Amino acid sequence: MTATIYIQPGAVLNANGVCRFRVWAPLRNKVSLLLPEQNVTHEMQRDADGYWSVTLPNIKAGTLYYYILDDEGKRPDPASRHQPEGVHGPSAVTDPNDFTFTDDQWKGMDLEQMIIYELHTGTFSPEGTLQGIISRLPALQELGITAIEIMPVAQFPGSRNWGYDGVYPFALQNSYGSINDLKKLVDAAHNMGIAVILDVVYNHQGPEGNYFNDYGPYFTDKYKTPWGQAINYDDAWSDGVRSFYIANALMWLDEFHIDGLRLDAVHAYWDSSALHFVQELTTAVHELEQRCGKKKILIGELDLNNPRYITPVANGGYGLQGQWIDEFHHALHSHLTGETNGYYEDFGKLELLARSYADAYVYTGQYSAHRKRKFGLAPEHLPYSQFVAFIQNHDQVGNRMLGERLSTLVPFEALKLAAAALLLSPFVPLLFMGEEYGEKNPFPFFASFEDPELVSAVREGRKKEFAAFHAAGEAPDPMAPGTFDAAKLSWDTKTPENATLLACYRYLIGLRKTRPALKYHERNGSKVHPVINERLLV
Amino acid sequence: MTATIYIQPGAVLNANGVCRFRVWAPLRNKVSLLLPEQNVTHEMQRDADGYWSVTLPNIKAGTLYYYILDDEGKRPDPASRHQPEGVHGPSAVTDPNDFTFTDDQWKGMDLEQMIIYELHTGTFSPEGTLQGIISRLPALQELGITAIEIMPVAQFPGSRNWGYDGVYPFALQNSYGSINDLKKLVDAAHNMGIAVILDVVYNHQGPEGNYFNDYGPYFTDKYKTPWGQAINYDDAWSDGVRSFYIANALMWLDEFHIDGLRLDAVHAYWDSSALHFVQELTTAVHELEQRCGKKKILIGELDLNNPRYITPVANGGYGLQGQWIDEFHHALHSHLTGETNGYYEDFGKLELLARSYADAYVYTGQYSAHRKRKFGLAPEHLPYSQFVAFIQNHDQVGNRMLGERLSTLVPFEALKLAAAALLLSPFVPLLFMGEEYGEKNPFPFFASFEDPELVSAVREGRKKEFAAFHAAGEAPDPMAPGTFDAAKLSWDTKTPENATLLACYRYLIGLRKTRPALKYHERNGSKVHPVINERLLV
Repeated sequence: MTATIYIQPGAVLNANGVCRFRVWAPLRNKVSLLLPEQNVTHEMQRDADGYWSVTLPNIKAGTLYYYILDDEGKRPDPASRHQPEGVHGPSAVTDPNDFTFTDDQWKGMDLEQMIIYELHTGTFSPEGTLQGIISRLPALQELGITAIEIMPVAQFPGSRNWGYDGVYPFALQNSYGSINDLKKLVDAAHNMGIAVILDVVYNHQGPEGNYFNDYGPYFTDKYKTPWGQAINYDDAWSDGVRSFYIANALMWLDEFHIDGLRLDAVHAYWDSSALHFVQELTTAVHELEQRCGKKKILIGELDLNNPRYITPVANGGYGLQGQWIDEFHHALHSHLTGETNGYYEDFGKLELLARSYADAYVYTGQYSAHRKRKFGLAPEHLPYSQFVAFIQNHDQVGNRMLGERLSTLVPFEALKLAAAALLLSPFVPLLFMGEEYGEKNPFPFFASFEDPELVSAVREGRKKEFAAFHAAGEAPDPMAPGTFDAAKLSWDTKTPENATLLACYRYLIGLRKTRPALKYHERNGSKVHPVINERLLV
Repeated sequence: MTATIYIQPGAVLNANGVCRFRVWAPLRNKVSLLLPEQNVTHEMQRDADGYWSVTLPNIKAGTLYYYILDDEGKRPDPASRHQPEGVHGPSAVTDPNDFTFTDDQWKGMDLEQMIIYELHTGTFSPEGTLQGIISRLPALQELGITAIEIMPVAQFPGSRNWGYDGVYPFALQNSYGSINDLKKLVDAAHNMGIAVILDVVYNHQGPEGNYFNDYGPYFTDKYKTPWGQAINYDDAWSDGVRSFYIANALMWLDEFHIDGLRLDAVHAYWDSSALHFVQELTTAVHELEQRCGKKKILIGELDLNNPRYITPVANGGYGLQGQWIDEFHHALHSHLTGETNGYYEDFGKLELLARSYADAYVYTGQYSAHRKRKFGLAPEHLPYSQFVAFIQNHDQVGNRMLGERLSTLVPFEALKLAAAALLLSPFVPLLFMGEEYGEKNPFPFFASFEDPELVSAVREGRKKEFAAFHAAGEAPDPMAPGTFDAAKLSWDTKTPENATLLACYRYLIGLRKTRPALKYHERNGSKVHPVINERLLV
């Protein structure tokens, strides 16, 4: 069960069919529960913290419900566990105890043991479902992967989305399968020695099906974000918002046996509180770890080059175990491709890759031409094993206009070099699905919004974004089903080049696991000798 | 001279009459220097960081100048050292070496030795000038004061202003006296064993005479502040902004021999950089200390209850030596007056004063009804001597609709009790001018803007603000000269009550200085025993 210190919102059904419905709406005068199948309404009681609740007997899993706020009309539950008809339809009660895990022996995994494989449920397999992942776990195991990282699965509008437009953080995307499918996936992975990391979005909510503002001050106008309203982590009423997201993290880690969370865009968690939200979150997760006796990790996507986020709480930090280092990617990518547009203007020189090998961050206080300011601090005293590196990921591939993978941008030999640069690095390596055999299908941005205004705004926005980034060519229509279909993995591992590259990844991963020198992540364990003019790092 | 690592902006005149004019305008294509008295223009050269400069011989102190930006018209220098005709007029060259200090023996003062007296230059003396302060230093010395804290003296519009509407951080308010008057004041104070703290405003700039946006991106729209645009501490081009304010701090501390700065509203220094601006500032000031061999201190006004700001850099903090604790005031004030409106709703109970004596902050993670969220963290391990406490200050008096001092709100005996509660506390005490003899003249908000729209906006704003705060009565017109005149100290120390209170302050200050138990500021040196029902703290 999830931690009791954070109130679990939503419909919580117990084994006797008693269900407690609980929703945070601190500024509402009246909140009722509507059960549309029975056409009955139940008044709810408010507590001092602004949570409204009602407990009812004889509720079955699958029961549909809405809340009615001040008689203004029905709304789905922001903490819904299931949206069978999508983001605009009713919420549904689920049974958290309807699955029996068989992974008692699994104790979790340290970040430094991980060789991570990032995948997108909808395009990873032909089926585009969680079942499609389960059936391909053996292939990943054979490759040597020790952890999969699943792009966000929170309910989003329609059936095609990277996942960052989710609007029901507690609900599993209805087109990906059932709650039990995700539990089966985790259980199967654990029984194969594979950890499961889930990508979660706590920095914004998606634009469609977003009913949060009807419920309460989930957002604040104090700060700006590129993706709409900032989450209210430090303004009036923020306790309820913080508790909501922490309860969400604990749900995935506890009920679903997920081993770790990848926190999207932690730099956009605006919080001026003395107790930073990240620190409250890491503390809560640490308490869960103590209670359940299994390792749980938190990894941030973080564009601040600020070591404080990954410094232990005891040393004045916020306590994340790890963070992504995009700069390692940028340094390697711009050097291999010669690209210097957009944020690559800060990279391109081999010496910057050497700096990443030495310091993890490339910018540790130097002037960044792209940011037009000095940027970053050196993460001294933090081991290399706190940094997740990659030569591709969903963003670095997908935020290109055409979504091209590295396999279509550089010669084949360079792919092997890049694989070695990653897998023999002191960092925790992350592969993007298909990278291991040189997948050539693109991974462009796609979505399936239903609101016509939003659809056209997104189309225009993408065009505008790429007007500056790329010189020529037309962006694929993000709303077209064909754009999504084209992103599906081919699983073409038989062509000579693909087979060779796959063998190369297997070899390098094997080498990484067996050579002690490659498992040593302390700072003093490696030295970088850039021989700049000869394009060589030793 | 000020630190060379931070480029000193403005007109810097050397002993040979050679003057270097230097201004930051990174987005301008052309910047020229206009000397209106000679009616000549000099083209300036841009360096890589966006600073434009020209060096001219035969320049005398007092020479007037403007900059011309892209031929768009003349503007005063944002780093002007002198605005002889006010905020809209020309800037003037000054001679930094025109004064000989006699305070070589002075080594500065630790915060824990300070008994601070906050004063406002315009209303402290009948003259309303820096000379008026010098002539009254003996009275402060006799009282036992060891430090004066001068409300902001940076050039503001007109002649009447608290100082927080300044728009030339490097220029001394022209109606207060000359640069040498301030140096004389500091020199005299030092020779009497009195330290000088200056209040500086690095969180916003005033609304009138604010030409910063013409020069460069001094502001950002990323964050909201109650006082207009936030200072750009972390967006593109912020290096120039950070350097500007750090150079300002170093100028006061070095050229003027100021002992410390009180940083206004540090909670509104929005900065997501890995190296927080406060840390960069404390580091620069520490370097100055090392170089000049004199103690220099930085004290923040800080409404975050976040110990990180006053934690040493070596321990993961930002390194301020001290901070104001408004909550001590609020707890005492609301208990004495029974006031529970506005932010006093979070106070009123004696046990909250006890909590402040124990923890310095009152809110260390508890729910605040006024903020509608949990607030703060306990400043464990930080000595009491890092906290500046007060029973009155310019804000707590002046932000009342009528600007009433405590002397007109509570019985006389309560004033003595309050004085003892402050002066026998483990914190660094701060008195607000006139408090020592029970001054009854108010200290309301006043200003003398010239822009008619701004004048009416400020008048309306004040009325609106107080609509909620006070039940009845009319706010004095902040723009009326009479409002300012009424705020001048009466210096009426002869009436029996006033004389008694003054003697009481002298006695308590003497006691504080001589009793070792009262000089012991470590955490384990004091214990608070609240006996709640009997209205007693032991």
